[in-house]
Amino acid sequence: MSVAMHIENEAPVELQRLRDSIDNLDAVLVHTLAERFKCTQQVGALKARARLPAADPVREAAQIRRLRVLAETAKLDPEFAETFLAFIVKEVIRNHEAVVEQATRPAAEATGV
Amino acid sequence: MSVAMHIENEAPVELQRLRDSIDNLDAVLVHTLAERFKCTQQVGALKARARLPAADPVREAAQIRRLRVLAETAKLDPEFAETFLAFIVKEVIRNHEAVVEQATRPAAEATGV
Repeated sequence: MSVAMHIENEAPVELQRLRDSIDNLDAVLVHTLAERFKCTQQVGALKARARLPAADPVREAAQIRRLRVLAETAKLDPEFAETFLAFIVKEVIRNHEAVVEQATRPAAEATGV
Repeated sequence: MSVAMHIENEAPVELQRLRDSIDNLDAVLVHTLAERFKCTQQVGALKARARLPAADPVREAAQIRRLRVLAETAKLDPEFAETFLAFIVKEVIRNHEAVVEQATRPAAEATGV
């Protein structure tokens, strides 16, 4: 059997193996994101209750710094990690606005980052 | 001690507890994403080697369906889960294009989804 034929025969099995891993990792991501949103919802509620300021630039800067270091350790592009955090925070704000709207409380409250 | 005072005193501790959890979950997300990109890089290389088509609409549709079901189970907005997958796939394509460019091979190869 030639090398080319070998690759052709092995490829579907190897592809399925990799896709199974991707599916497992996606399940981790979805459940971790769900847990993270539970936390940020609690942060939002806590800030509103304790009348703490919505935004916290010091915390936000520390989060970005930390994530970039983590990304480098994990050999993930730090730029992507930062964009990823911004993407999630956008959803956190959207969720919070939906909660505020539902409760008919005044807007512009805690972002829960 | 009044309820208001109690909330005020407890808030910083509770906020720190929640933020520590968010930080832990962010570390999970970063490392899981790094592992996922390792898999998609292997998928890209495998597809190129085995001359498999870059895009696989059946696989992509199945991934979206699966992720939406997972999201519902985890009480995460399925719309967000789908947007999240699109966000990651965009990065996968960007990574792949960078690899292709580096290797000075012809573009428009496997996306590795």
